[in-house]
Amino acid sequence: MRTHYCGQLRPEHIGQTVTLFGWVDRRRDHGGVIFVDLRDRTGIVQIVSDPERTPASHSFADQVRNEYVVKITGRVSQRPEASLNPKLPTGAVEIYADQLEILNGVRKPLPFQVSTIEPEPVREELRLRYRYLDLRRERMGHNLQLRHQVIKAIRRFLEDQEGFVEVETPVLTRSTPEGARDYLVPSRANPGEWFALPQSPQLFKQLLMVSGLDRYYQIARCFRDEDLRADRQPEFTQLDMEMSFMDQEEILALNEALMAHIFKIVTGQELPLPLPRLTYAEAMDRYGTDKPDTRYGLELVNVSDLVVDSGFKVFSAAVAAGGQVKVLPIPGGNDAISNVRIKPGGDLFKIAIGAGAKGLAYVRVRDGGSLDTIGAIKDNLSQAQKQGLLERTGATDGHLLLFGAGPTEVVNATLDRLRQALAAELNLIPADQCNLLWITEFPMFEWNADEERLEALHHPFTAPYPEDLAELKTARAQAYDLVFNGYELGGGSLRIYQPDVQQQVFAAIGLSPQEAHDKFGFLLEAFEYGTPPHGGIAYGLDRLVMLLAGEESIRDAIAFPKTQQARCLLTQAPSGVDDRQLAELHVASTYDPNANA
Amino acid sequence: MRTHYCGQLRPEHIGQTVTLFGWVDRRRDHGGVIFVDLRDRTGIVQIVSDPERTPASHSFADQVRNEYVVKITGRVSQRPEASLNPKLPTGAVEIYADQLEILNGVRKPLPFQVSTIEPEPVREELRLRYRYLDLRRERMGHNLQLRHQVIKAIRRFLEDQEGFVEVETPVLTRSTPEGARDYLVPSRANPGEWFALPQSPQLFKQLLMVSGLDRYYQIARCFRDEDLRADRQPEFTQLDMEMSFMDQEEILALNEALMAHIFKIVTGQELPLPLPRLTYAEAMDRYGTDKPDTRYGLELVNVSDLVVDSGFKVFSAAVAAGGQVKVLPIPGGNDAISNVRIKPGGDLFKIAIGAGAKGLAYVRVRDGGSLDTIGAIKDNLSQAQKQGLLERTGATDGHLLLFGAGPTEVVNATLDRLRQALAAELNLIPADQCNLLWITEFPMFEWNADEERLEALHHPFTAPYPEDLAELKTARAQAYDLVFNGYELGGGSLRIYQPDVQQQVFAAIGLSPQEAHDKFGFLLEAFEYGTPPHGGIAYGLDRLVMLLAGEESIRDAIAFPKTQQARCLLTQAPSGVDDRQLAELHVASTYDPNANA
Repeated sequence: MRTHYCGQLRPEHIGQTVTLFGWVDRRRDHGGVIFVDLRDRTGIVQIVSDPERTPASHSFADQVRNEYVVKITGRVSQRPEASLNPKLPTGAVEIYADQLEILNGVRKPLPFQVSTIEPEPVREELRLRYRYLDLRRERMGHNLQLRHQVIKAIRRFLEDQEGFVEVETPVLTRSTPEGARDYLVPSRANPGEWFALPQSPQLFKQLLMVSGLDRYYQIARCFRDEDLRADRQPEFTQLDMEMSFMDQEEILALNEALMAHIFKIVTGQELPLPLPRLTYAEAMDRYGTDKPDTRYGLELVNVSDLVVDSGFKVFSAAVAAGGQVKVLPIPGGNDAISNVRIKPGGDLFKIAIGAGAKGLAYVRVRDGGSLDTIGAIKDNLSQAQKQGLLERTGATDGHLLLFGAGPTEVVNATLDRLRQALAAELNLIPADQCNLLWITEFPMFEWNADEERLEALHHPFTAPYPEDLAELKTARAQAYDLVFNGYELGGGSLRIYQPDVQQQVFAAIGLSPQEAHDKFGFLLEAFEYGTPPHGGIAYGLDRLVMLLAGEESIRDAIAFPKTQQARCLLTQAPSGVDDRQLAELHVASTYDPNANA
Repeated sequence: MRTHYCGQLRPEHIGQTVTLFGWVDRRRDHGGVIFVDLRDRTGIVQIVSDPERTPASHSFADQVRNEYVVKITGRVSQRPEASLNPKLPTGAVEIYADQLEILNGVRKPLPFQVSTIEPEPVREELRLRYRYLDLRRERMGHNLQLRHQVIKAIRRFLEDQEGFVEVETPVLTRSTPEGARDYLVPSRANPGEWFALPQSPQLFKQLLMVSGLDRYYQIARCFRDEDLRADRQPEFTQLDMEMSFMDQEEILALNEALMAHIFKIVTGQELPLPLPRLTYAEAMDRYGTDKPDTRYGLELVNVSDLVVDSGFKVFSAAVAAGGQVKVLPIPGGNDAISNVRIKPGGDLFKIAIGAGAKGLAYVRVRDGGSLDTIGAIKDNLSQAQKQGLLERTGATDGHLLLFGAGPTEVVNATLDRLRQALAAELNLIPADQCNLLWITEFPMFEWNADEERLEALHHPFTAPYPEDLAELKTARAQAYDLVFNGYELGGGSLRIYQPDVQQQVFAAIGLSPQEAHDKFGFLLEAFEYGTPPHGGIAYGLDRLVMLLAGEESIRDAIAFPKTQQARCLLTQAPSGVDDRQLAELHVASTYDPNANA
């Protein structure tokens, strides 16, 4: 019935009779001659109905309104010179509608304008409530298509070029006591027992390696019952991969080729390979974060050794206590950033405090390299220290130096946040640039101050570097993250496959053999039956699509997302359910809306 | 590091030095010379270690046992004439192992033999408990690969040839009060409220049509909390499709091309198109079921009109009460099936009773067309009736005629079950044949005797044939099922997109406008904003893979299935959870194991 999609029509079709289906994007009445912009998922084409030339369609064309669903049949014609529209791919042609059939109308006022001609901003609550209309608009239609292209590119590369096999792992599975909170599902057949929705297919993909599958991937739905942030969703999609008999270099090379393939297919751009790498230590040192945005400079400079014995106690005491003093040097910062913003009550001061800092010291570099700052600093730095600061930071006239001094984590967090905020404010971020890099050599463990014990930075199956085994507590992990413009796009590791190493790691995090068995028994048992060396990685697919689409929220990369309150505004999920349903499941809500939370 | 997979090696590789990884399938010691069958997911190749020729590998080859994980490097050699193995694709070559490295061992006795050489039967409980070893065996490894091939073939066809876009729909969604039981998930962020896991993406795919997506597909996980049967799972995978602006003929043609593509890719066979079709009425008449296995005959014959006024009251009363009398004629049945099996207590009698019949009448056709049966039948049929029976059923000497008499549903169910059981017993089923056919023109409604009302046979958005609108209660639906060797492989329909038709259908099933709004409000609202004509279909992917793999249980088509008790024997899900987890979710179990159920 349909002969073409709207967006396909070109001068080469002139003279052909075509049948199109679509939505009325706009209708204009030019004194009897009616113009209809007809839209489908491929684009827009202009339909004309003229009372003289196409009398059969004219009364119908007269009735249609925005978003009516119509079928038209007519001949493709050359547009008159004066009405050519070079902005539209179909702008050289129009179609005289011999027939126009109204398939469906619109019976309520549209909550917002769908037309692609003059997109209006719509508040997100309304977009989510009427998601089907939001998806009909150009922006979200494009994002859904882009998501499809990305997934298609991933599948083709992994299947055709690298021999990966897709395997579906269970959604109804067992609650694991690590990581974030699980979503739980009561079992009717086994009352009193619960399934959990998977936070990732981690255990299953390692079991597939034990099964000899060799190369596994899955576009997998994952679930985390966390307090939501802007870029988190209760359910999200992960590109999940695991492979056997490959070392870290081979895994990184394969993943770089995958990324280059996606970029080539989706953006047409060549991604220069190999990707840059930073060790975790380097990244923390230079950027204060393990997911640095390297599209701009503003690198941090460690000056601890310069100021360790300065008379300014804030600096010297921080270093003496095992912390650091680091500088964020901002070229031209003198003119751009006023003291009011840096001093108590100012926006930059608040960022520092929000990151855990006690204050925000600064130095302005004036003409000839003189330092302008508060007396307590100026008076307590020697000339050599001042000179050292200028040299180390490369600061010249007009530079503003912002200082972090204190525990290393606080200093890094503070200067990382300031660096990001000021880069955006000073327009230092090249919007069209895509910087990908690997972060490697993560530490195996971090100190959990609350529980006074080491815990695994990734998960307890992450393999240490063999040469670090003797000093396991400070060992580096064979783990790697891929960072894209300051976002953690993915992360993975080689896994432990030797029982003795696994025992050492459990011991390091204070897990007794019995506890290990209770938590991971079936996986540890599987590892007894011939486990290959293996490793893997997982990517946040929603985030990848968001970044490639140039969006700022993963909700704009998902067809039917939930709000930050974990609700679906379209279906009004979650909702109350029948008592009968709960009774069948042998569960009850204990929530008392009248009690204090 | 790896240069080849084991199963790839051929005479053309002779002379090359290769590095392989894999598992020891078998190890044989022939007086000092050790032979190792090395296996990976592609197959097996023979490794040789000779104390003279490859001394470096010999002590390691001596240590390996079944299922050890090893790396070997060596030269591909021609096998001696006497040890050529034509059964193995790699059987012309062997590899002298210059180096053999043991990467991992096996530390517990294997629960069953993994080796592909002499597969032993293993009870399913053990296979599921040690699924990673079961998947390492040839049968399940093949099934996983086949599943991957089927999904790949589906994706490529829909994406490349038909312009379908894959969209992921939510897993955490709203409970809908239709259909089977929902799996429920308590919401922590919205205490007292619950998500439901989707029984299908039905509502979302229709919303995507409202959004103008035009052609949608998804390999979708679906969930039904049903009492399990042999071929059901709590979670299962569906190929879900929906398309706009296509009529039933176009949808069926596209789906036939899809099936032909899958068959071509997976089996190499051409599926003859167009596929045969039966209307629902025809299928019920000739086979007593809407999912007939047409690989064999044994068609039912309606003789109601012949026996309506016979003196045998079982027959005449059944017809008088609005029911039917039908015959299952079995050529050669006289010799094959004894009276003992048909009379009370016999296995065929029990099948009939199990289907709701009150008994099982029979007639044996003896030499010259004489009828041999119980007196009550023989004495109460006229000569003309006897002659009519023979002619109508085509029965000749040796035929056994089994009768169903009573309410139509009972007659059909009885003869359907007998037909299937006897076809299997009499070896009438050609094992290698794949019969696909469409069942069309389903009734819109069926009578729910319990609730004394009509209910939708499919779902209440299924479109009736326009010409049947005047008599909606007996209308045919524009619905279609695809049947594969007696299994319902998929089903779908055109959807209602006109509000007046939707109102009529709701009225027919006794749903008030308020009830309709409460149940489907957001979908009905969406339909107000320009809904295109649309329709779709969904296939049971696990079942398709099961049938193509020649398996009899969908558990053998799924990597990590659950038992019929809805348990995962590998991870022991579902399980008890911490009270703290339940408290956070504001839920409690009400199950008292000591109370009577």
